[in-house]
Amino acid sequence: MSGDFSRRTVLGIGTGAALAAGAMVRAAPLQQPVKKRSDSLGIALVGIGLLTEGQLLPGLTRTKGVHLAALVSGHPEKAQRYADQYGLPHRQIYNYDNYDRLADDPSVQIVYIVLPNFMHAEYTIRALKAGKHVLCEKPMAVTVHECEQMIAAAKTAKRHLMIAYRCQYEPLNLTAMRLMREQALGRPRIVHTDMGRQTSLQIPSDAWRLDMAKSGGGALADMGIYGINAARYLLNEEPVEVRAWARTDHDDPRFKTVEDLINWQMRFPSGAIGEGSTSFSQPGTMAYQVVGETTRLVADPGCFYNGNKLSLIGGNLTTPHITEIDQFAREMDWMGDVVRGTAPMVSPGEEGMQDMRLMHAMLESVAKDGATIATDWGYRRAVDPAAVVDVPAIT
Amino acid sequence: MSGDFSRRTVLGIGTGAALAAGAMVRAAPLQQPVKKRSDSLGIALVGIGLLTEGQLLPGLTRTKGVHLAALVSGHPEKAQRYADQYGLPHRQIYNYDNYDRLADDPSVQIVYIVLPNFMHAEYTIRALKAGKHVLCEKPMAVTVHECEQMIAAAKTAKRHLMIAYRCQYEPLNLTAMRLMREQALGRPRIVHTDMGRQTSLQIPSDAWRLDMAKSGGGALADMGIYGINAARYLLNEEPVEVRAWARTDHDDPRFKTVEDLINWQMRFPSGAIGEGSTSFSQPGTMAYQVVGETTRLVADPGCFYNGNKLSLIGGNLTTPHITEIDQFAREMDWMGDVVRGTAPMVSPGEEGMQDMRLMHAMLESVAKDGATIATDWGYRRAVDPAAVVDVPAIT
Repeated sequence: MSGDFSRRTVLGIGTGAALAAGAMVRAAPLQQPVKKRSDSLGIALVGIGLLTEGQLLPGLTRTKGVHLAALVSGHPEKAQRYADQYGLPHRQIYNYDNYDRLADDPSVQIVYIVLPNFMHAEYTIRALKAGKHVLCEKPMAVTVHECEQMIAAAKTAKRHLMIAYRCQYEPLNLTAMRLMREQALGRPRIVHTDMGRQTSLQIPSDAWRLDMAKSGGGALADMGIYGINAARYLLNEEPVEVRAWARTDHDDPRFKTVEDLINWQMRFPSGAIGEGSTSFSQPGTMAYQVVGETTRLVADPGCFYNGNKLSLIGGNLTTPHITEIDQFAREMDWMGDVVRGTAPMVSPGEEGMQDMRLMHAMLESVAKDGATIATDWGYRRAVDPAAVVDVPAIT
Repeated sequence: MSGDFSRRTVLGIGTGAALAAGAMVRAAPLQQPVKKRSDSLGIALVGIGLLTEGQLLPGLTRTKGVHLAALVSGHPEKAQRYADQYGLPHRQIYNYDNYDRLADDPSVQIVYIVLPNFMHAEYTIRALKAGKHVLCEKPMAVTVHECEQMIAAAKTAKRHLMIAYRCQYEPLNLTAMRLMREQALGRPRIVHTDMGRQTSLQIPSDAWRLDMAKSGGGALADMGIYGINAARYLLNEEPVEVRAWARTDHDDPRFKTVEDLINWQMRFPSGAIGEGSTSFSQPGTMAYQVVGETTRLVADPGCFYNGNKLSLIGGNLTTPHITEIDQFAREMDWMGDVVRGTAPMVSPGEEGMQDMRLMHAMLESVAKDGATIATDWGYRRAVDPAAVVDVPAIT
């Protein structure tokens, strides 16, 4: 990798024409365990929920520059079972009481916070105080104030704080971003996003998401955030106004404290309009489309863990073939490169706080019956993912 | 056909389960000229533009109960050419000076207004005064007042006035409507529509559409109306509030008097939200999707003349196979049945006026920077298309 962070192998900026003509993007097959680099960094996974079990532990068998170094859990048997499965010594299992002892564990350089949203701030700040770099799941926290505290703690500790926006590291989404940077779709007019799924109070990982104090925003915080982030990274600009309507059946026991459906619009300085819907009462959906002046881009699904599909309609573009990668392995490897100083920070705490502020502006609009809320707080992304994040080299 | 207007052959109300399981809907192949019924009614086509040339004249070779009986045009050579092609005697060619003489032509029962929007009201009212039934292209007119005058003229003349909402007679759209009436998608949450295309001042049929006085609303009147109408016929209810933002480059010579992109939302009494975008600076798009609680329905394209595609995502529904028909033949045949008294009026003037009022409410919202406009004027559709319009029997 070059020192100027220009990891532009196949789909780098400047290759729009080749891409439009049908560039191939391939990655290592998902199944192969990957050999680690000699300077691989240790990651502690904090919280063993569905994401850790289904994505992050398998993902860490496919990373090159980071590896599983610790598990933090309140369930010792579960932790031991996964430690055994992934070859982690039992002494590397921590719980929430001895969590701060990570400070004395030189095998851990990065702490990945995979806890319910309301625990993000506390465990991020404690990890930073323990001298660790932190990768934190999105949404970053429950309040804007927590985000500010987390960012300040990273600054004080002189450690990296990265928010786990996996789509900013994922080939299909990077391809879409690059097509837009190249103006390959023509002037962007509309970015439309649909993000939602079904929830149940009987599922523990859903139950806390249906509690406003723990989730910070129901469907909006859980699924809608993908659409908000996508509108921003696709357009590569920040909205100046947002507004939203909610539609929630508050007789439904799931929606005692959170909104269900939220439908929002954003005005962007370029003239583009972003819009989206999110709900906890619909089939699993993570889709978006961009209406450009010459071409319409449909990503449906666009943000699933796998099986995503990109279509380009209108114009002379050929839909590029995009091969799946393990998004989580890629994101964790990127964090490793950030810590080593060989990759730029693409999704820092400020990026997470921007979505948090926008979500709160939407909730404010809902409370004001759809009033338009000004949102130009001056935030600008420090690093454009499409400018620096490569896709894996052709194998 | 039964006398109670229940043309429920394959996809009638009550057959949702069969439909969901993958019912076949077939129609006569598009190419075959169809033998006329003995009581076929004569149609005069008023205006020979792209729609008449490309769709209506060919369509009239496929109708069963109506036939080409006259052409009205300001271009005698063009009219003669098409008369020759379609076997119409030259004496059946009218122009705009002798148009009212249609009153004395017993071979014409129905006048189909295919003129630019600003001419709809005048030529509709003159045809009604001549004792003819009128099928009028959408949008119905340029102002709500014109719509009122047209409806009053039909009442005075005791003649039928039908607005040419072809999608209300088209199998894919009827299938979508029926799935929703059966609650096959679960509770509807969002209806999203994308309707747009490219325009050019150099194309005569576009030039008048880019003139506010002649079109009544630019992209909104030309393409957006499909999305507004779709949201209403899919949900089978009327919006109580609308709002809209416009995005128009007024330096573009096309947009001196009309808006380009309009992005709108509607609130429906059921709790569903309708939304849509329309523009004259995008690739040809006529698509919609419905997010239901259990299933997402994607029609992309959904309103093209042909090549439409229906997908059902989530839930246990099998996407039904829908065979294309000639939408224009079907619509004109329906008008014939209305005149004969064997089919109900599905899309009367009041239906056209409702869309006109909604479009004007959107333009009012645009002028008020997106203010929410109340739209519950008490209009209710007299006949639900999904309840009465059949699809052609299996051949």
